[in-house]
Amino acid sequence: MSETMEKVVSLTKRRGFVYPSSEIYGGLEATYDYGPLGVELKRLLKDDWWENIVRERENVVGLDASILMAARVWEASGHVAGFNDPLVDCKKCKARFRQDKLEQSVCPKKKGKRPGECGGELTEPRQFNLMFKTKAGPVDEDAATIYLRPETAQGIFVNFKSVMDTTRVKIPFGIAQIGKAFRNEIVTGNNIFRMREFEQMEMEFFVAPGTDEEWFDYWQNERLSWWQSLGVRAENLRIRPHRDDELAHYARACGDVEFKYPWGWDEVEGIANRTDYDLKKHQEYSGRGLAYRDEEKKEWVVPYVIEPSMGVDRCFLTVLCDAYEEEVKPNGETRTVLHLHPKLAPVQVGVFPLVKKEGMPERAEAVYQMLKPVFRTVYDKGGTVGKRYSRNDEIGTPFCVTIDADTLTDGTVTIRDRDTMEQERVAEDQLIAFLADKVASYTR
Amino acid sequence: MSETMEKVVSLTKRRGFVYPSSEIYGGLEATYDYGPLGVELKRLLKDDWWENIVRERENVVGLDASILMAARVWEASGHVAGFNDPLVDCKKCKARFRQDKLEQSVCPKKKGKRPGECGGELTEPRQFNLMFKTKAGPVDEDAATIYLRPETAQGIFVNFKSVMDTTRVKIPFGIAQIGKAFRNEIVTGNNIFRMREFEQMEMEFFVAPGTDEEWFDYWQNERLSWWQSLGVRAENLRIRPHRDDELAHYARACGDVEFKYPWGWDEVEGIANRTDYDLKKHQEYSGRGLAYRDEEKKEWVVPYVIEPSMGVDRCFLTVLCDAYEEEVKPNGETRTVLHLHPKLAPVQVGVFPLVKKEGMPERAEAVYQMLKPVFRTVYDKGGTVGKRYSRNDEIGTPFCVTIDADTLTDGTVTIRDRDTMEQERVAEDQLIAFLADKVASYTR
Repeated sequence: MSETMEKVVSLTKRRGFVYPSSEIYGGLEATYDYGPLGVELKRLLKDDWWENIVRERENVVGLDASILMAARVWEASGHVAGFNDPLVDCKKCKARFRQDKLEQSVCPKKKGKRPGECGGELTEPRQFNLMFKTKAGPVDEDAATIYLRPETAQGIFVNFKSVMDTTRVKIPFGIAQIGKAFRNEIVTGNNIFRMREFEQMEMEFFVAPGTDEEWFDYWQNERLSWWQSLGVRAENLRIRPHRDDELAHYARACGDVEFKYPWGWDEVEGIANRTDYDLKKHQEYSGRGLAYRDEEKKEWVVPYVIEPSMGVDRCFLTVLCDAYEEEVKPNGETRTVLHLHPKLAPVQVGVFPLVKKEGMPERAEAVYQMLKPVFRTVYDKGGTVGKRYSRNDEIGTPFCVTIDADTLTDGTVTIRDRDTMEQERVAEDQLIAFLADKVASYTR
Repeated sequence: MSETMEKVVSLTKRRGFVYPSSEIYGGLEATYDYGPLGVELKRLLKDDWWENIVRERENVVGLDASILMAARVWEASGHVAGFNDPLVDCKKCKARFRQDKLEQSVCPKKKGKRPGECGGELTEPRQFNLMFKTKAGPVDEDAATIYLRPETAQGIFVNFKSVMDTTRVKIPFGIAQIGKAFRNEIVTGNNIFRMREFEQMEMEFFVAPGTDEEWFDYWQNERLSWWQSLGVRAENLRIRPHRDDELAHYARACGDVEFKYPWGWDEVEGIANRTDYDLKKHQEYSGRGLAYRDEEKKEWVVPYVIEPSMGVDRCFLTVLCDAYEEEVKPNGETRTVLHLHPKLAPVQVGVFPLVKKEGMPERAEAVYQMLKPVFRTVYDKGGTVGKRYSRNDEIGTPFCVTIDADTLTDGTVTIRDRDTMEQERVAEDQLIAFLADKVASYTR
């Protein structure tokens, strides 16, 4: 893990964003829990996506399908037969590797060296299916094998007909979903970047065949705009079109939204033209018609699908990595600061009494009560004001409001800006309007 | 299933609230998917709970732990050894029953008769563990067995120390969580009431021993108030204290919030005094101290825990059952209506042009655009106004706004109230204020 990444991970743990899962029991590999600040940031990201994708659009509806589905779904989708990684074992050190990633793998015995350089021979590859299996129904011997879904997309495809039949959507339209998915990855890593349990935000946008290329372009642009609306800097984002030789077999085209992580450019979202592959497979396996009626052409047509698909956890990590900065202050000291967009900051305003006397705590409490219904606000009376600024810089609080002796005489407070560290005095009765304007007009 | 329940289930399916999961493949027993209206209602319920439990309180923080946890967690909690149902089989008809529920069970061969009345003998009971098992790590033979969590609570207990160490919470305080849990139930039923995959909203509130009874009462009252704040009628809610002989072994006291479902009173939420049982077990199994420092007594103390725990899906069903009515109109016709609280209605306002001409659609579109940023609004131009009222009654839309010929001359619109079916004329520029007041002051 790179040095910067280690610092980001350390901060997220220290400040209650992300904890290793089951930590008191030594952890469970590649699973993580979101702590008090993390759960708020994750909620805000999901809400922002849902608002942008579902609620603001007239042609997209939501869905929340179950994680457990009939096994037949994964036969139809091709996951039972083909969702495999080829694994090889080192006969000497017993380490296991993905054959298709040997170039990026290292031998655990010979640090920094390639697999096999410990002197061991590698076995022939075996195919390993990445789906977690379990059994539904009591008593193992006659229970049915089912799978934890490895992607949320299929939950949308199998409900396509129900949504068409029970709502008034018309092609082109989308069905969006947020939910957990599971992959029994052998190569995990970079903290929450690649986990065995993760959360997806996916939308399947159903379009008339022939209009798919146009919609593919549309959604690439829409998604890139959304990333920028989170405050992620444009120079750290790019769209990388897939080469023909890396395209999934069902896809006509795919563009990855990539972010410049501490370890380099990597995928944070994929926009794919999945064609009519999935719906046709489900037609075939279920025997149910999954077409729409084209009233002009007077025929039944299986729509094409454009899919913007992303991981919530990667989105979370992207926002944190982009926001993270170790900055040298004018006085030569270093401060750690998260430049989170105020709409995403788990705490938007910190309210401090300068000292714990002379009526300042009571006045600060009143300011806190005034702000709390409007902004995510905390009341913070512990330690020096400098310490309180540091703590709030680290968790990304964009505005700190201090109540001091002047407040008691002239009714003004100090607002300290996280990014510029500049301070302004504002009258208490102007505070809400002042902060609302700051949040709305924020640019980094 | 009772007749009323069948009608509610039929409505939820017909209108896109809830679909049977994997339906095109014949379904997967006891799993369901939430459709476009359902996912919105479910989000609104979860958001309301989170707002009430976490964001409005200074002594409760959130958490989002993973579904997959180290197996040792479930050994410590007692689930591996004791989370069992005793099952018996009928030797003749091969049906399987819960031994402890034989009184409520029926033989599938002899309709309405008790198990065994087909003439078959019942086997001795076998213990069946309700946790779904799976294997983590590649290649089955050496992968570790892990479980899908059967409750979200343990994710909170194992993170108790991390939260104490990385935030500034002090006893008494709570940690709240919303997330999926899984139980391989043999007896499922009543649609989404008892499923194999379900979602919980739980909060563990950590208190000083000796103050637990007081906090137990506090949380019972708080939770009952919340249920009423959703608009669920008081006569359909009650708290039923557990008898000593039905208390879980770890609990000192438990009160169930019960709702009067179509099939009778049943549990929708439990408030339990779990004592220090869970934290002490995790101390023992992990070897890590899970106590807090009592500065007055100068000693380390394991806190007691008060737990309000509910299922999101049951909450959803409760709200729907309470809202559902088949009402005889003054003209003798029957209408089906969902009296959802406007803050929970997936659609809050329907906007209709009376007819598709004379400029009404354009004017209605303008009203729609005005309301959309403030209320969950749909534009509905299909069918007669009567049909549009019916459709919106069924999905619980509290207000329908019609643009007619008078609108074009005097700038007023008709607002039709879902519950009373009364109509009022309101000036377009007063519309937002009028509706906001209606939403805020709603009583059924």
